[in-house]
Amino acid sequence: MSDRFTPAFDDKFTFGLWTVGWRGNDPFGDATRPALDPVESVRRLAELGAHGVTFHDDDLIPFGASASERDAIVKRFRAALDETGLVVPMATTNLFTHPVFKDGGFTANDRDVRRYALRKTIRNIDLAVELGARTYVAWGGREGAESGGAKDVRDALDRMKEAFDLLGDYVTQQGYDLKFAIEPKPNEPRGDILLPTIGHALAFIERLERPELVGVNPEVGHEQMAGLNFPHGIAQALWAGKLFHIDLNGQTGIKYDQDFRFGAGDVRQAFWLVDLLETAGYEGPRHFDFKPVRTDGFDGVWESAKNCMRNYLILKERAAAFRADPEVQEALRTSRLDELARPTADGLAELLADKGAFEEFDVTAAAERSMAFERLDQLAMDHLLGVR
Amino acid sequence: MSDRFTPAFDDKFTFGLWTVGWRGNDPFGDATRPALDPVESVRRLAELGAHGVTFHDDDLIPFGASASERDAIVKRFRAALDETGLVVPMATTNLFTHPVFKDGGFTANDRDVRRYALRKTIRNIDLAVELGARTYVAWGGREGAESGGAKDVRDALDRMKEAFDLLGDYVTQQGYDLKFAIEPKPNEPRGDILLPTIGHALAFIERLERPELVGVNPEVGHEQMAGLNFPHGIAQALWAGKLFHIDLNGQTGIKYDQDFRFGAGDVRQAFWLVDLLETAGYEGPRHFDFKPVRTDGFDGVWESAKNCMRNYLILKERAAAFRADPEVQEALRTSRLDELARPTADGLAELLADKGAFEEFDVTAAAERSMAFERLDQLAMDHLLGVR
Amino acid sequence: MSDRFTPAFDDKFTFGLWTVGWRGNDPFGDATRPALDPVESVRRLAELGAHGVTFHDDDLIPFGASASERDAIVKRFRAALDETGLVVPMATTNLFTHPVFKDGGFTANDRDVRRYALRKTIRNIDLAVELGARTYVAWGGREGAESGGAKDVRDALDRMKEAFDLLGDYVTQQGYDLKFAIEPKPNEPRGDILLPTIGHALAFIERLERPELVGVNPEVGHEQMAGLNFPHGIAQALWAGKLFHIDLNGQTGIKYDQDFRFGAGDVRQAFWLVDLLETAGYEGPRHFDFKPVRTDGFDGVWESAKNCMRNYLILKERAAAFRADPEVQEALRTSRLDELARPTADGLAELLADKGAFEEFDVTAAAERSMAFERLDQLAMDHLLGVR
Amino acid sequence: MSDRFTPAFDDKFTFGLWTVGWRGNDPFGDATRPALDPVESVRRLAELGAHGVTFHDDDLIPFGASASERDAIVKRFRAALDETGLVVPMATTNLFTHPVFKDGGFTANDRDVRRYALRKTIRNIDLAVELGARTYVAWGGREGAESGGAKDVRDALDRMKEAFDLLGDYVTQQGYDLKFAIEPKPNEPRGDILLPTIGHALAFIERLERPELVGVNPEVGHEQMAGLNFPHGIAQALWAGKLFHIDLNGQTGIKYDQDFRFGAGDVRQAFWLVDLLETAGYEGPRHFDFKPVRTDGFDGVWESAKNCMRNYLILKERAAAFRADPEVQEALRTSRLDELARPTADGLAELLADKGAFEEFDVTAAAERSMAFERLDQLAMDHLLGVR
Repeated sequence: MSDRFTPAFDDKFTFGLWTVGWRGNDPFGDATRPALDPVESVRRLAELGAHGVTFHDDDLIPFGASASERDAIVKRFRAALDETGLVVPMATTNLFTHPVFKDGGFTANDRDVRRYALRKTIRNIDLAVELGARTYVAWGGREGAESGGAKDVRDALDRMKEAFDLLGDYVTQQGYDLKFAIEPKPNEPRGDILLPTIGHALAFIERLERPELVGVNPEVGHEQMAGLNFPHGIAQALWAGKLFHIDLNGQTGIKYDQDFRFGAGDVRQAFWLVDLLETAGYEGPRHFDFKPVRTDGFDGVWESAKNCMRNYLILKERAAAFRADPEVQEALRTSRLDELARPTADGLAELLADKGAFEEFDVTAAAERSMAFERLDQLAMDHLLGVR
Repeated sequence: MSDRFTPAFDDKFTFGLWTVGWRGNDPFGDATRPALDPVESVRRLAELGAHGVTFHDDDLIPFGASASERDAIVKRFRAALDETGLVVPMATTNLFTHPVFKDGGFTANDRDVRRYALRKTIRNIDLAVELGARTYVAWGGREGAESGGAKDVRDALDRMKEAFDLLGDYVTQQGYDLKFAIEPKPNEPRGDILLPTIGHALAFIERLERPELVGVNPEVGHEQMAGLNFPHGIAQALWAGKLFHIDLNGQTGIKYDQDFRFGAGDVRQAFWLVDLLETAGYEGPRHFDFKPVRTDGFDGVWESAKNCMRNYLILKERAAAFRADPEVQEALRTSRLDELARPTADGLAELLADKGAFEEFDVTAAAERSMAFERLDQLAMDHLLGVR
Repeated sequence: MSDRFTPAFDDKFTFGLWTVGWRGNDPFGDATRPALDPVESVRRLAELGAHGVTFHDDDLIPFGASASERDAIVKRFRAALDETGLVVPMATTNLFTHPVFKDGGFTANDRDVRRYALRKTIRNIDLAVELGARTYVAWGGREGAESGGAKDVRDALDRMKEAFDLLGDYVTQQGYDLKFAIEPKPNEPRGDILLPTIGHALAFIERLERPELVGVNPEVGHEQMAGLNFPHGIAQALWAGKLFHIDLNGQTGIKYDQDFRFGAGDVRQAFWLVDLLETAGYEGPRHFDFKPVRTDGFDGVWESAKNCMRNYLILKERAAAFRADPEVQEALRTSRLDELARPTADGLAELLADKGAFEEFDVTAAAERSMAFERLDQLAMDHLLGVR
Repeated sequence: MSDRFTPAFDDKFTFGLWTVGWRGNDPFGDATRPALDPVESVRRLAELGAHGVTFHDDDLIPFGASASERDAIVKRFRAALDETGLVVPMATTNLFTHPVFKDGGFTANDRDVRRYALRKTIRNIDLAVELGARTYVAWGGREGAESGGAKDVRDALDRMKEAFDLLGDYVTQQGYDLKFAIEPKPNEPRGDILLPTIGHALAFIERLERPELVGVNPEVGHEQMAGLNFPHGIAQALWAGKLFHIDLNGQTGIKYDQDFRFGAGDVRQAFWLVDLLETAGYEGPRHFDFKPVRTDGFDGVWESAKNCMRNYLILKERAAAFRADPEVQEALRTSRLDELARPTADGLAELLADKGAFEEFDVTAAAERSMAFERLDQLAMDHLLGVR
């Protein structure tokens, strides 16, 4: 059954192979679903209306596969893409599953592990570019520590910078049209992970040799694991010109990484997020990085994949109605959002010369003005819940 | 009674007037202590061994005081400084107590409030410089929102940038030798505060017209309110060359802002923090921004002020012993901290040419090496607890 | 403008005088609104469709008022109730604002403070009964500690038990038809509060002399401050026969106590909460314990009070539609909710004798069944968002 | 090298086979250590000074083993116990690893899974008793849900009660001298787990048919994952007479379950915990439920096991010194801990008759008394850090 919340190719919904392919193993339990053939994932996602798929090297090509196995897998995968029309806008490296990465990849204390991590990344960059990817995500989930002496963080940041500088050299020398997107996360699987939030990643990027090549790939749940407001973080990334990619999913607060389907978890933040992405002109893929709950079989896998997209489209419709509502527009003016968009002063001299700004400012009168935020927020609630 | 944990002037311990002067009002209760005369605070802190005091404009000069009252207060305060030898290395602005700032200072939706906030700041910068301050802290506690429509974050960041650019213009035109330090906080008193962590503040600074004038003033409890590792955040600030000031206190996890005395709360992170500050050559003041518990009278005020310094000195001794211990040095090598300090490659070409780095790398053997972190962490614990 | 979400008296919506009357003072800021006359609150709430009001002693009668002032206030308040038809189903005691309670009321270390707290409570119980209240709430916000040595918790629980036993004696001797409802909270204003969750309060009650007189008054935000699922806690309270009262509001995760209007914060949990209250036959008041945001004037106060009720009614409609939907009913069966309602065994002997239960149980086949939770949860989402 | 922190048999330190035997698999990574033979664990733990070992059925006997394999394993295990003198004070059931338990054991929606879970438990109870266990732990890690419709919590609590009632029937009929200890946890691996805290478990127990047979087994990290004060929870469990067992480990705040060695994480709470256990006369085992970090090899496994015990003994020495210190005793009196231990009233009549308790109580004077908690807490800090 198709309705107005059925996705189309141009909605740019993409999925990681590892999402629908997650087998359900968790810290306390074994896998509950069999492995899924990447080619089947491509076909099913295409049927559901997706735009593309993404992958870690090891999602597609088992760790340690021979060159000929690798070639056969890639060929078959590419055929499925051609058949379905799905694209591969992004790829990434698995630097966390194999025990060799137990202390990290780019910032492992062991130098040879760091070198191996870089070479593994470079190998998959070649494949990513070959398959048409324009964004290369780097989630450094193992870059961190459980104890204070185990990692000199300043040294580790030097190594992290060295890694991105070398990768920047590589794509530049190869003439690749590929940008990097760092995915921050505060903790899990390490006690504390380096570059724990959008902010830390944005700040780090500014110290690289080629900052223009590197942006961020924020994930809803990762910021919410630190109790941070996700739309606020995305707004700062957009403000900095650094929202290169995004991972959409759901999380119910500060706890383990839940990776629920998009819309589950904090649906009010999801509303404001979609509102922001749609009004800010974000043009990248709407990428879902979620895990279908392990209690379900493949019925739940495809149901949840479908509903990631459905929920986005519902929220997009609601956010658009909110922005188009004349009462909302009036309420935004009443709350002086238009004044926030105006510069505060015409330069320092103007500000200093104005007695009305300070000496003669009526502080009491200004303090008594209502911001009228309660009404504005209820209008948003009414639109979200579809009662206007 | 003086012992080796009694502070000296050169330990550079400083206190906000608002810390010992906090009267104990909280969201559910009235003040439990009378107001404290700033001059008495100066004298008592001097007796306890402090190096200096810091202040918000309104801590020293009541909001709305006349020019002559102001002059008299400043004169008397300066006399107390001269008498005791205490210095004023830092000052800041109160842009949060008065109702006029209920929606923020630099990013209030109301343009006239933003202008007033800037002028109030500029006025106190003059006093700060007059009293010898070299650092001007900006905590934007009211810059934020409780609901998604109430603040356009990108506009707000434009206004925040405008504010710091104007302040940079001001100190430059005046020829002041003063730098700014932004103090991040994730929430409280706003539902979500802009620039919520060290990382977000560091990233923001890079977009200013004069980034060299602006650094950060991280506070222990503020990062811990987001569940972040404080020493890790400080390490990134140092790595970026941006640790311009620091606020030391205690917090017991993700909850309301507790502002306990330094050492209370997470004493293991406090150990690693002191280790980092002392080994990284941080030369700024060790500034305590805490609140003596409201259950106590002035006995508790001075007791807790004394113990902020005592705990720092205990941890400093312990961290130094940790670093000097030959077994620790051996354990650090066993955990390959020395390898982390080495570059990963001699450039891209060298890395790509090395078959040992990838094609012939023995992944299994590398994965089997122990990092030996448990032993290293227990050595730190033993030093912290004084059993070695 | 009246619509289907406009409340009626029989919806049993009640408000604390302290909610609409909150003046907006917070840990970092002064009051932003003038005091509100309780009589005006009664009238305005009646106009909005409320059922009743509740109060702390000091909300109605200023701390330290004389007997004649008290009488005059009560007389005038009662007249407003009579005029509007509002009832007073619940009252409570303020044992937290005055500095005398800085270390607690019933569990203060000072014995005379504990005695005073009990007598203050007893005095207000008389007034509560006089005004028709059937529930007396006890929020022990100051019963706790910031440091480990400051409170012997076992002694404190003895004192807490003694207090409720004495209060039970009192209402029994007086022949009052009044029950107590303990309101748990994990922290703030104390570092850790005794009886921090619904569970701890339920367990404590079982050790009282008259457990039948005492239940719980859970508050949405308080449980969510510990990251707990509020509907789950309410379900356990209902299961124990102890949901004597409820405080509805909004909170955005683990942080300071926000007291947003009901529906703000986690609207998905709010949906499940209303679903539970309405299907479980909870007959008590729907009591709002919230704070209108301090950025707003009285416009926001009445707007938010109205919307607490509106949001409840929207969610009630949506939850009813969810339960009535045949597809939902089918999905619940597919997820075997009906099986959960069936006893697991017909006694021990039957279970032990059944080889099919263990020796011959097909574990693999059972493991492969899908629980089909993803579909069920999306049906709930669709109903919440009004797209079915 | 032996010192005063080397454990002895009578210190009653016990370890789960699954702790030292943890192979290091986590949500994002494969095992980093090979499997450990339970017999080797017994021998190594004995050498380190442990008192006993505990186990889940599947730790000792692989899931699905035949009867003869089972017998051989048990025989060999028992021989190792005899050889070393280690005892088995506790055992438990694995109702979480196998996919059949993906929706829970005792509260799975599927009735046949619940029956299987009960029978699996009963089978291991027989073995537990055979090996001398007196406590049977029940951690219902999979009893919960990720979405609101997936579990009717009241039905689930009925099933949970049914399960414990049936188990109570079983041990009673068998004449076993065995008690149950419920282990609460707020979340992970389920989004929300039933009986999320000590309080919820204590309350649940009171509704069982044989409450006297059931107590709690709190785990340090589990309560801290909800931001709760662990010693406070233990104090309430002791107060209720329900601390039947305890799981000691370390956690750094509200995040995924870390299971660090005891002492790591919040060492100040660990100090107060040991102080409480030692002064309250807790006589059960000091059981460590931790995971050696996966970055380490077996060196780290045995190092961390040793240091769990070492840290307990260090803290025990420090807590004893704290209690014995005359200045501490004086400080406790100054903070009126002795008054907290006294009843508040000699009954209701006495309290009501005393005008000094209310009408003539000097509220202002009482409010002005300092509680002197800052000094008391620093004395504890000084003892913890060994500087007194």
